Amino acid sequence: MFLKEGDYVLLLTSDEKSYLVEIKDLNFHTHKDYLNLKDLIGKTYGDIIYGKKGEKFYILKPTIYDFLKKIERVTQIVYPKDIGYILLKLNISPGKTVLECGGGSGALTSAFAYIVGEEGKVISYEKEIKFQEVAKKNLKKLGLLHRVIFKNIEILENFEEREVDAVFLDVKNPWVIIKGSWEALKGGHPLGILVPTANQVSQCLLELEKYPFVEIEVVEIILRHYKTNPERLRPEDRMIAHTGYLIFAKKVFEK
Amino acid sequence: MFLKEGDYVLLLTSDEKSYLVEIKDLNFHTHKDYLNLKDLIGKTYGDIIYGKKGEKFYILKPTIYDFLKKIERVTQIVYPKDIGYILLKLNISPGKTVLECGGGSGALTSAFAYIVGEEGKVISYEKEIKFQEVAKKNLKKLGLLHRVIFKNIEILENFEEREVDAVFLDVKNPWVIIKGSWEALKGGHPLGILVPTANQVSQCLLELEKYPFVEIEVVEIILRHYKTNPERLRPEDRMIAHTGYLIFAKKVFEK
Amino acid sequence: MFLKEGDYVLLLTSDEKSYLVEIKDLNFHTHKDYLNLKDLIGKTYGDIIYGKKGEKFYILKPTIYDFLKKIERVTQIVYPKDIGYILLKLNISPGKTVLECGGGSGALTSAFAYIVGEEGKVISYEKEIKFQEVAKKNLKKLGLLHRVIFKNIEILENFEEREVDAVFLDVKNPWVIIKGSWEALKGGHPLGILVPTANQVSQCLLELEKYPFVEIEVVEIILRHYKTNPERLRPEDRMIAHTGYLIFAKKVFEK
Amino acid sequence: MFLKEGDYVLLLTSDEKSYLVEIKDLNFHTHKDYLNLKDLIGKTYGDIIYGKKGEKFYILKPTIYDFLKKIERVTQIVYPKDIGYILLKLNISPGKTVLECGGGSGALTSAFAYIVGEEGKVISYEKEIKFQEVAKKNLKKLGLLHRVIFKNIEILENFEEREVDAVFLDVKNPWVIIKGSWEALKGGHPLGILVPTANQVSQCLLELEKYPFVEIEVVEIILRHYKTNPERLRPEDRMIAHTGYLIFAKKVFEK
Repeated sequence: MFLKEGDYVLLLTSDEKSYLVEIKDLNFHTHKDYLNLKDLIGKTYGDIIYGKKGEKFYILKPTIYDFLKKIERVTQIVYPKDIGYILLKLNISPGKTVLECGGGSGALTSAFAYIVGEEGKVISYEKEIKFQEVAKKNLKKLGLLHRVIFKNIEILENFEEREVDAVFLDVKNPWVIIKGSWEALKGGHPLGILVPTANQVSQCLLELEKYPFVEIEVVEIILRHYKTNPERLRPEDRMIAHTGYLIFAKKVFEK
Repeated sequence: MFLKEGDYVLLLTSDEKSYLVEIKDLNFHTHKDYLNLKDLIGKTYGDIIYGKKGEKFYILKPTIYDFLKKIERVTQIVYPKDIGYILLKLNISPGKTVLECGGGSGALTSAFAYIVGEEGKVISYEKEIKFQEVAKKNLKKLGLLHRVIFKNIEILENFEEREVDAVFLDVKNPWVIIKGSWEALKGGHPLGILVPTANQVSQCLLELEKYPFVEIEVVEIILRHYKTNPERLRPEDRMIAHTGYLIFAKKVFEK
Repeated sequence: MFLKEGDYVLLLTSDEKSYLVEIKDLNFHTHKDYLNLKDLIGKTYGDIIYGKKGEKFYILKPTIYDFLKKIERVTQIVYPKDIGYILLKLNISPGKTVLECGGGSGALTSAFAYIVGEEGKVISYEKEIKFQEVAKKNLKKLGLLHRVIFKNIEILENFEEREVDAVFLDVKNPWVIIKGSWEALKGGHPLGILVPTANQVSQCLLELEKYPFVEIEVVEIILRHYKTNPERLRPEDRMIAHTGYLIFAKKVFEK
Repeated sequence: MFLKEGDYVLLLTSDEKSYLVEIKDLNFHTHKDYLNLKDLIGKTYGDIIYGKKGEKFYILKPTIYDFLKKIERVTQIVYPKDIGYILLKLNISPGKTVLECGGGSGALTSAFAYIVGEEGKVISYEKEIKFQEVAKKNLKKLGLLHRVIFKNIEILENFEEREVDAVFLDVKNPWVIIKGSWEALKGGHPLGILVPTANQVSQCLLELEKYPFVEIEVVEIILRHYKTNPERLRPEDRMIAHTGYLIFAKKVFEK
């Protein structure tokens, strides 16, 4: 499959710096070299393209992970380590309808939209229009804009949707919309919440106890990178210590 | 949507023990009570059903996470915390063709099959026929058997496939099939490996260096559960300390 | 140095089970063998002694770590991973006077008494007389009883001491004695607190803010054991996920 | 107790930056203010001293932890989280004789010297004279220089000491001196090793198996700091991911 105008590629330099670019008639500069991106046309993923000064660039298929890493962000984003687990806990798969509140820059939105496929749908609430505009740009890059219904509304009580397959909340005060989330969800289906502080976890748990939710789970996920020298295998010196606590529960009709 | 014969439900007791069951004419017993599973017909997810002795059972939608947790296992399985990250790194989405070697009990196979959708395909190599039989049973429960091509072959050198979107290796000696994985992959596309020991990581890294692979990454993922008492928020006393190291890389045509 | 009656030794079996025993005329039984402990007299640490059925027992010097691991416990104890850090943060060394509240079974008390030496002193408050009796037994085993002043008093406001070098609190509601701890401490000297829950951390922090304390630090320490097979190096499967949060601060006279 | 010339104090600014200084006739400058350090004479720990421009400085007692944090370093140092555990595992206490190889900048040396007291002794081998000079300066600051015997020797086989209470190795290739460590140790007494890579752990374990060592343990210790806002309790964003693996064993005379 040959690359064509409008495709996205991940360009990787020999010192393993990567750049997510769209193929179009534009000069692309790194600290070392430059090339015209339209010269990528006709190449395939896995090929090498040389810069004007002779630097090597590997042409890689950008994965959803790469898109998430390179996403334009105006908010704190949900990290891949957390997104992967959220996908499984919320049972995201082709054809599902997922509602999220606090879409932010659209990282989690992108992952949801990527997995629900053409038959699925993501409804993304975000009260800040400027965040949502960025999210739209990010979804557009992925070619997934049509799978998302963006709503620039601050939810104070209830969502407009009913019978959705999963709800995810990534807002400052998720407890105020836990009741609303319950209303929006199908029976027996999962709710997920991300909050950065322990105090917020407690507040969410208190609120979850007030409504018919079961299988309440709180977790945190820690990802540690290793240096890749086979003779000197060891973790990197520093790591992300915390992104947030994840809370999950399932709706039942009564308790 | 009313439940019908053949559907799977997750039954949850009031003390939060859960059971994955298929609806059919069968008495289902827990330590406290029992019920006939055909009585679930006509109920919906989120409902309560009462046992013959009056015990309450919540009827929940089993998520892919639940299936993975309840999977029949004859081997060590890949854990959800790792599977979620693998999905993102391998760029799994509807329509993809994924090759895995060392399918084992079929946990990762299930997750792949769940996400690739009706247009996608999973090719699952496993040398032990008895493991593969269990994997087939597990996939059947999920209704995903038709998305998987099972191959009961020990790969010593090369896979039969070419141009697959992603390869995942979960075998004792993945280094012997790293070259074969390179052959099977599309250019610029990702390879993933799971190994339990540091020594195996080193051996894989040594082998990966011999072939044109870039963006080599080694990580481990740690998941910590918290007790859900909002007044006494704290991690559980014990946790899984280790499942395995994850290795990722992308194929290029030359280096 | 030859072992004599009254000495403590750590007996280690060939399958690495260890027993902390005192040398005296007593038959000591394991699941496999037995021996009379007075037969240890005249041996030295590092020697082997054989049981009556031929089992090998290694005679090891019990370290403070071993005493802590084998301590008779009627309460949750402070773990070595935490104790080590506490010693450094509280600046414990020969000659120091340390006050602790919530002595429990005496694990931390033992470590303090071990390090402060003959010129130092540990004051240990514990409201439960039955816990304190156990702590005394534990300290006696270590030969350190004379370094500890036990006080069977519930502190509701103030300690009887002034100008101590360090204070450590391991009680359910440490916030009620933070003011009292401030009173007891020397200026510029450290306070330490251990609490199991995040909510307690918050309450302590709120209280610490009310008094002149600086350099407030909250940490948790995670220790992961590895299997010791050099060909298959990897962490143990399971680990302690949580013991408690450690809080430290230093007293100043005004803020 | 009033401060006098030659004493060390930890000066803490209102924005919680700390400086370890010796009291002498010298102007001390921070980014905001300055003061003459001899003005500290007659103050006590816990007092405030004001800079020439009115900035507040808290006068704190420097703990051994503070000295370790502020230590002049020309090498990677052992971290407090690891040192605390090492102290317990090696059974360091007043009066002990400890041998270390690879003293580096003297962090662990300082902690050992601090705890062994006036009756104890630390023997510190270091092949690089320039590292050892720094270690000496650091020990001098702590007033503990007389407790340490520095040896500027590269150990290729055997130490000069026998019957020491504990040995600690912090060198690149500790396996070459494991036999030598066995020779130097008292029977039944502990050896500790710190290495940064998994490969080194394996090599040490292989070597330990060749000699009569028992109770072999490999651990890593992870310390996570929390932000201290009681209303928003959460871990810091980033943390140290790895310092090293700790290996412990005890010498027996035969196996």
